[in-house]
Amino acid sequence: MYRSHTCGELRIENVGQKVTLAGWVQKSRKLGGMTFIDLRDRYGITQLVVEADAPAELVDIATSLGREYVIQAVGEVLERQSKNSKIPTGDIEIKVSGITILNKSVTPPFTIEDESDGGEDIRAKYRYLDLRRNPLKNALTLRHRIAHEVRNYLDSQNFMEIETPYLIKSTPEGARDFVVPSRMNPGQFYALPQSPQTFKQLLMVAGYDRYFQIVRCFRDEDLRADRQPEFTQIDCEMSFVEQEDVLGTFEGMMRTLFKNVLGVDIPNPLPRMSWYDAMDKYGSDKPDVRFGMTIHEITDAAKGKGFSVLDGASYIGAISVPGAAEYTRKQVDELTEWVKRPQVGAKGLIYIRVNQDGTFKSSIDKFYAPEDLAKIAEAAEAKAGDLILVMSGDNKRKVQTMLGVLRIEMGNRLGYRDPKVFAPLWIVDFPLLEWDDETQRFYAMHHPFTAPKPEHEALFYSDKKEDLEKVCANAYDFVLNGTELGGGSIRIHNADVQKRMFEVLGIGAEEAEYKFGFIINAFKFGAPPHGGLAFGFDRVCALFGGSDSIRDYIAFPKNNQGRDVMIDSPSEIDQIQLDELQIKTDVKGE
Amino acid sequence: MYRSHTCGELRIENVGQKVTLAGWVQKSRKLGGMTFIDLRDRYGITQLVVEADAPAELVDIATSLGREYVIQAVGEVLERQSKNSKIPTGDIEIKVSGITILNKSVTPPFTIEDESDGGEDIRAKYRYLDLRRNPLKNALTLRHRIAHEVRNYLDSQNFMEIETPYLIKSTPEGARDFVVPSRMNPGQFYALPQSPQTFKQLLMVAGYDRYFQIVRCFRDEDLRADRQPEFTQIDCEMSFVEQEDVLGTFEGMMRTLFKNVLGVDIPNPLPRMSWYDAMDKYGSDKPDVRFGMTIHEITDAAKGKGFSVLDGASYIGAISVPGAAEYTRKQVDELTEWVKRPQVGAKGLIYIRVNQDGTFKSSIDKFYAPEDLAKIAEAAEAKAGDLILVMSGDNKRKVQTMLGVLRIEMGNRLGYRDPKVFAPLWIVDFPLLEWDDETQRFYAMHHPFTAPKPEHEALFYSDKKEDLEKVCANAYDFVLNGTELGGGSIRIHNADVQKRMFEVLGIGAEEAEYKFGFIINAFKFGAPPHGGLAFGFDRVCALFGGSDSIRDYIAFPKNNQGRDVMIDSPSEIDQIQLDELQIKTDVKGE
Repeated sequence: MYRSHTCGELRIENVGQKVTLAGWVQKSRKLGGMTFIDLRDRYGITQLVVEADAPAELVDIATSLGREYVIQAVGEVLERQSKNSKIPTGDIEIKVSGITILNKSVTPPFTIEDESDGGEDIRAKYRYLDLRRNPLKNALTLRHRIAHEVRNYLDSQNFMEIETPYLIKSTPEGARDFVVPSRMNPGQFYALPQSPQTFKQLLMVAGYDRYFQIVRCFRDEDLRADRQPEFTQIDCEMSFVEQEDVLGTFEGMMRTLFKNVLGVDIPNPLPRMSWYDAMDKYGSDKPDVRFGMTIHEITDAAKGKGFSVLDGASYIGAISVPGAAEYTRKQVDELTEWVKRPQVGAKGLIYIRVNQDGTFKSSIDKFYAPEDLAKIAEAAEAKAGDLILVMSGDNKRKVQTMLGVLRIEMGNRLGYRDPKVFAPLWIVDFPLLEWDDETQRFYAMHHPFTAPKPEHEALFYSDKKEDLEKVCANAYDFVLNGTELGGGSIRIHNADVQKRMFEVLGIGAEEAEYKFGFIINAFKFGAPPHGGLAFGFDRVCALFGGSDSIRDYIAFPKNNQGRDVMIDSPSEIDQIQLDELQIKTDVKGE
Repeated sequence: MYRSHTCGELRIENVGQKVTLAGWVQKSRKLGGMTFIDLRDRYGITQLVVEADAPAELVDIATSLGREYVIQAVGEVLERQSKNSKIPTGDIEIKVSGITILNKSVTPPFTIEDESDGGEDIRAKYRYLDLRRNPLKNALTLRHRIAHEVRNYLDSQNFMEIETPYLIKSTPEGARDFVVPSRMNPGQFYALPQSPQTFKQLLMVAGYDRYFQIVRCFRDEDLRADRQPEFTQIDCEMSFVEQEDVLGTFEGMMRTLFKNVLGVDIPNPLPRMSWYDAMDKYGSDKPDVRFGMTIHEITDAAKGKGFSVLDGASYIGAISVPGAAEYTRKQVDELTEWVKRPQVGAKGLIYIRVNQDGTFKSSIDKFYAPEDLAKIAEAAEAKAGDLILVMSGDNKRKVQTMLGVLRIEMGNRLGYRDPKVFAPLWIVDFPLLEWDDETQRFYAMHHPFTAPKPEHEALFYSDKKEDLEKVCANAYDFVLNGTELGGGSIRIHNADVQKRMFEVLGIGAEEAEYKFGFIINAFKFGAPPHGGLAFGFDRVCALFGGSDSIRDYIAFPKNNQGRDVMIDSPSEIDQIQLDELQIKTDVKGE
C-alpha cells in the first residue's frame, strides 16, 4: 500500500504519528520559505508542510510540484497553528520528511475546483478530470449509497435480484429499439431492452414472486435535454398482490431511502392524489405539492359579462399568485409573452390584481365591474396582494396543463421550489384508456397489460364510450417535487380481461398474436396475479442530490446528440467488421 | 394481498390458525373421498386437504384442479396425522374451506419436478416453466445471495459501485465486439463493452480509489460449450495499491463469500502458486489442487535406453495414478485412444504398472530393465499399485499441458473431484511476455498495460530475449477446483515503463497512438498507481452451487448458437428499422 492513511482521515488524535499519504496536489504555495501543499484524494484534503530548513533536495521537489501531480508524502502529524474549521482534517498538518513523485501531470485544461473555470464541452471531453471535482464525486457517492440502500431494503423484503438479458428481441411496440446485428445469424438482429418488462412478467409466471433489478435500459429516441439513450431503472415486480401491497412496499422503500440517505422523515402514509385531482388542481399528472397556488375553475364566475374570449370558452381557470399584485405592467406583459411561447402555447393571459385595499385592477376592467372581479377572486380563492392569472379555452385539460406550467414557473420565481424540501406522493386512479379523436379509437394510457380497477368491471365491459372513459386503471406513479420518479401497475393476468382489453383497443386477434403472442402464450401456463413498478434511478439520484440534471449523476453520460465526446463514440468501424456482420452502411446524402 | 402466509411458512405452532395461501398446484390426489393438494410457491410446498364431507361445490373445484393451476385456498392449519419430515411444512396441513381458481393452466410440456421429463430443447423454449423447478430456483437464489454478499463486503471496504456505459466504442484490440448502429449518427456504430477495463482505469485517474461493478460484458466469439455472448463480471479496481493489497482485499471477499454463503472456511492466507510451479506440477495455469497425482519430470531417468521416442524427446513427464496398476490392457488402450483425440493431441501414451509385489509391467519392457523402470518409478514418486502414465515431446509446456488434461480426466474417473470440496488458490508470477515463434515477436500474456514485477526491472530493460522471457508480471489469477474464477494485474501507470512495454511488443509510436492513444493521453493528467481484477460471476455462482454448467445459473441464457430460443432472438427486423439506421443486410450465399 502506498499510504498508511487517506487524505480525509487524520485528526487531532493522530498528532505525533508518522504517516504516509498519497494523492493529488490540489495546490501548493510558498510562504516565508515554507511550502504548503494541499494533498487530495477521494476522502478529503490534508495539508502538507515542507519547512524552510528541510533538506535542499526535499525543498526542491516540493517546489517542483505542479497541479494534479500524484505524490506520496511521508511525515509527522502536527497540530496546526491556524486551524481550518471548514475541512475535517483542518486541525492538523503533516510535517513532511520525504516526497516521492508517483506521476507527473500536464496542466489540466480546467481547474479542478468546486466551481471550475471549464466550459461544459471541455469538461465533457475530459470527463475523467471533471469527475475529480467534488460536486461530481459527491453525486456518484450518493448514487452508490442509494443503490446500496435499495438493494438492502428489497433483499430484506424477500426480493431477489435477477439479471435479465441485454441481447433480446426487437418488438414492434413502444419506442425505437437499438439493434445489434448477429454475426452468427446473418441478417438477424438482437435488440437492446427498453425495459425488462416482458422478462419480469415471465419471472412472475415462473413463480419468483418478488423480483427486482437495478438495470440499464435503452431507447433510441430523439434526445431532449436530460434524456439519455441508456439509463438505469430500479425495476420491480411482485406476485399475489393488489395495488395496495405494491404501494405499501415501495412507499417503505422510499421512506427507508429518505431516512437512511438524507435523514429526512417523509409522511407515513404518503399522500395520494387521484389523477383527476392532480389535473384539476395542478394541471399536471406529476404535481409539485411543495407549494399551493392551485388551479381554480372560475368558469361560472367569469362567464356572461360580454367578454367574448371568456364567454366562448368551455373552461376558465385561474391561479392566484401570492404577493404578485405589485407586479408592474412590464412584468405582467413579460409573463404574457412567456405563456405565448410555443413551449406553453397559450393565446394570452388575463390578470386581475387584488390590491391590499381590496380594490381590483385587471386587464378586463372594461367588461367586469369590481363586484364581478370580486366574484372571480372569491372563486380563485385570492387574497389581498395576490395576482390572479386566468386562462381559458375549449379543452379543459389543455388549459389546466398550461396553467400548471405557469404555476411551476411562478413557483420558481417566488422561490417556492427549494430542492432541499421533499414532498413525495402517489398519483393513483389514472384513466385506463385515452380516446384519440383523430383515429377515433382508444389507446391504453399506460400499456395494454394494465388492469382496470376491479370495481370498474361493469364500466369496462360497457359498449358506451363515456363509460369506458370513466374506467380507472390499477396504475400508480410516484411523484416527487414535480417529477415522476416511478410508476407501474397491476397487470392483467386473466385471459378474458385481456381479450376484452384488446377488443376495446381495437386490436384484432391476429394483431394481438403478432405483437404479444409470446407473452400471452406464457400466461396460459398459470400466470399469478401480479404487478410492479419501475423507478428512474438516474432521476432518483439527481433529486436526492437536490439537482435536476441527471447528467451529473451518471459517471460517463452522453450528450444531446447521443455522443460520448470523451471516447468519441459512436464512430466508424472497420470494413472487416461490417463484412463479418454481412451488413452495409447505406448513408444517404453524403 | 392474496395470501396471509407463503407456502413455506407454516409450522406446528400455527395449528388452529385460519390462513389464506396462494400458489401453484404441484399435484393433487384423491384418497378415500378426500382430496390432497400440494400447493407450491417460491418458498415451499404446503399440503391442502379437502375432506370428503366438504360442501359439494368445494369438492367439485378441488377435483377439477389441474397441474400448475394457480389457486387461492382458505382454511385452518391442522397437525398432520402422518408427518413428512422431508419438507419444513411437513408437520401441518390445511383443512380447506374455500378455493378460488386464480388462473387455469394448460398442461405443461414437461413435468415441473426436480428431475423433469423434458429434454433440454423443450425446457429452453419454455424457460419460464423450467425456472419453476427447484434446481433452477435454487441456482438463481444462490446467485442473488452471492451478489448481495459481494456488494456488502465491497461496500464495507469503501468500494463504490459505479455504472459504466454499455454503448461505447469499438476497439481494434482483443475479441470481436458486438456493435450497435447509431441512427442519429448514420454510418457510425457504438460497441458493447467486452469489459469496462478502460472505464475502470479512467475512474482511477479520476481519483475514485476503489471501484467495483457487477456488470454485463459482451463478446461476439464463436461459442464453445459454456460460453455465453453476454456474461457478468464482478469488476474491481483500486488505487495506491501493490499486488499484495489487491490479493488481500479479494481473498477477504472470497473468504466472506465462502463463509456467509456456504458456511465453508477456506485457508487464511490462501495458498499461492507460481505460474511456473502450476505448469510444472499440474500442466495447467488453473490447477485443481483438490488432489495430488502431480506431474513429475522423468527426463533424466527415462532417457538413454535406446527407445528412440523418449531418447529423442527434450522433456519427459509422468503422473502416477493411484490404484490403477490393476487397469486391464483394454482400459489402458482406451486411455491411449483418449489422449490421441484432437482435444488432447498426444501421439501416444506409455504406461508402467507398479504391481503390489514391486514388479513392473510396462509398454516399454523391451527397452527398459526392471531397475530402469524402478528408477523411473522413483522419479515419478509412484507407489505400489500405481499406474505410471508417461508422455514426452520437444515442447515441455505442451507435454505438461497434455499430462495436465490427462490428470484431470483420471481425477474425474477416480472420484477425486467432489464439487462440494473447495480448494481455492492464487496463481502468481505469470510471465509478462510470451514469445511467438511464427511472428518472431513477444506478445503480452495478459495485456499491454500489465506491469512487470518491480524486482525484474533490469531484465525488462535488457535486450536479450532470454532475459525478457524471465520477466514476471504483477498479475494474478484466482483459481478454484481447476477453474479460473478471476484474474487481474497491477497496471503500468508510468509513461516510461509503458513506452518500454510497447517497444518490447514491437508496437510503434503511431500504432500505440492509434490503438491506445485515448487512455495514454488520460494517463498524462496524473494517473495513480493502480491495479485490479475481475471475477467471472456466472462461473463463481456455478462453482458455489457445485455445478460446472453456468447456464443453470443464468435466468435466460442463450444456446450454443447464441440464440435465445424462448423469445426466438436474434430475428429479422422491419425494413423501416433498417432504413432509419441507414444500413442494409448483405447476406451472402442465401
